[in-house]
Amino acid sequence: MATETKETTGLIGSDKVEGTNVYGADRKKIGSIERVMLGKRDGRVAYAVLSFGGFLGMGDDHYPLPWNQLTYDTDLGGYLVNLTKDRLEGAPKYSGSNWDWEDRTRARAVNDYYGAPWAAY
Amino acid sequence: MATETKETTGLIGSDKVEGTNVYGADRKKIGSIERVMLGKRDGRVAYAVLSFGGFLGMGDDHYPLPWNQLTYDTDLGGYLVNLTKDRLEGAPKYSGSNWDWEDRTRARAVNDYYGAPWAAY
Repeated sequence: MATETKETTGLIGSDKVEGTNVYGADRKKIGSIERVMLGKRDGRVAYAVLSFGGFLGMGDDHYPLPWNQLTYDTDLGGYLVNLTKDRLEGAPKYSGSNWDWEDRTRARAVNDYYGAPWAAY
Repeated sequence: MATETKETTGLIGSDKVEGTNVYGADRKKIGSIERVMLGKRDGRVAYAVLSFGGFLGMGDDHYPLPWNQLTYDTDLGGYLVNLTKDRLEGAPKYSGSNWDWEDRTRARAVNDYYGAPWAAY
């Protein structure tokens, strides 16, 4: 009997992406994906929110990343980002739930930081 | 204090799409979205899996829909599909977890049924 595959070579389920590990340029684990932000009009994955572990949700840091910064690595079984820890530490981030995607200035700062093309969602 | 928005006019979080109601051409609720399937290479939302309520997960019916069949309706606060119940009942579906996205014949049958362009993910 076949089992529903949440992942194939070409497709991955949103509920599988959530929680998937993210690895840095040194192939060490940085954190995991909390959610992805989807563009309503173009149907594209626009951002991934990378989260670091905190204690009981306290002290969590969240880094919005343009989706094109992530490459799925089958060996690691997770996403690889070409970032060092230092580089990431200077990136736009937020604590707790203190982020508003509607704030274009903040969103644009994310794209600018990573040199990703700006799409005004 | 700002709160993290999982949805703006242009963006929506994957964890917000999951569970969002889906309405038919008569604007009556059909079911809800279980997950979306994302294309790994092109970063696009390829399919949404529409689920009907079952009893304790038994008797659930799941309908993979090409993403372009869904339009977000702000009045309804959910996705509108231009489908009647009859039309949907003849559509490719599965019960439980009996689906394999790697099976191109089944995936293609979904696109063909809805007249959606075929992209071999």
